[in-house]
Amino acid sequence: MPWEKTFDLDEATDKAIRVFWTKGYEATSMSDLVKGMGINKGSLYNAFGSKKELFDRALLRYDQKNRQRAIAQLSEIPDGREAIVMLFDGLVAEAEADTDRKGCMLVNTALELPLHGEDVREMVASALGELVTFFRQSIEKGQKLGTIPRTLDPDETAKSLVASVVGLRVLARGAFDLGGIRAIGNSAIGMISEP
Amino acid sequence: MPWEKTFDLDEATDKAIRVFWTKGYEATSMSDLVKGMGINKGSLYNAFGSKKELFDRALLRYDQKNRQRAIAQLSEIPDGREAIVMLFDGLVAEAEADTDRKGCMLVNTALELPLHGEDVREMVASALGELVTFFRQSIEKGQKLGTIPRTLDPDETAKSLVASVVGLRVLARGAFDLGGIRAIGNSAIGMISEP
Repeated sequence: MPWEKTFDLDEATDKAIRVFWTKGYEATSMSDLVKGMGINKGSLYNAFGSKKELFDRALLRYDQKNRQRAIAQLSEIPDGREAIVMLFDGLVAEAEADTDRKGCMLVNTALELPLHGEDVREMVASALGELVTFFRQSIEKGQKLGTIPRTLDPDETAKSLVASVVGLRVLARGAFDLGGIRAIGNSAIGMISEP
Repeated sequence: MPWEKTFDLDEATDKAIRVFWTKGYEATSMSDLVKGMGINKGSLYNAFGSKKELFDRALLRYDQKNRQRAIAQLSEIPDGREAIVMLFDGLVAEAEADTDRKGCMLVNTALELPLHGEDVREMVASALGELVTFFRQSIEKGQKLGTIPRTLDPDETAKSLVASVVGLRVLARGAFDLGGIRAIGNSAIGMISEP
């Protein structure tokens, strides 16, 4: 089958990511996917199974390419404070560059969770759980170095920083202007700073 | 037309709110609305116009009955710190009671903004802008009374508290357990407390 030679699974998944990321799971139709991925319906079902299976695969790949990779890099920075500052600087820069306001596929999915099954809920909860762990470990590293106040509760502060990340991502989809987005970033850094 | 006598616009809008709130705008079909509102398609179009017009009306009514009413009550509390504590206590209590994890219709819509027109974007931005104003005024009231540190920047902290509210609402849809939700609430109060 000559056509199938030109059909790369990862490339097609990347195209599916863009569709789901912008529209969300529920609102995405098979014809949106056929159009966005540039492959026909039969090949799509053959290669990926159902819309649900394609979404699971797309979310997993998105998470690996974005959140996991970023956290792995930031975790290598010795000063946890610097790692957290870089994360929020990155989020603000992404919001500035995200002209079509896609936000974050993981956060978008977190909001759609009641419409998904237990497997997607677990995937999102575990991804956000790893973000909590990253913040907690960074806070502890900063506290050891004296760059983050030792009075802070690392676990509680970590969960609150995840809420700030999620809030920033949602508000960047059009409800806040860039000044508001930057204020959220500054204030998150304020949480781990000496008063 | 005998049937129309039993048809109350506000009641029907409340039923539409429940449908949109749970499923979001894009994923809600006319047949979801017909089913959820218990009226037939023709009457629905006659009374409310399009799905879009029904959504606008539903969102406006939801906002009036929930956010506007809550803010009006909380704004009367003389100590702004107490008002902010009560707001977060209320959000945590709502998350505990929200067994079908609908979250907040306004926040759900904030995430869907790129799919909506400018009128919905303005409605959401203005509702969240009023929440920023409530937090800013409460912080200033608390600072005058000495219950909130005077070193805080009221505007930046207010925007960050809105991000916490939004993050809490999203994470309460299934990504965080109740312990995590309470940590976000505690940490938000930590933002307006002496270290």
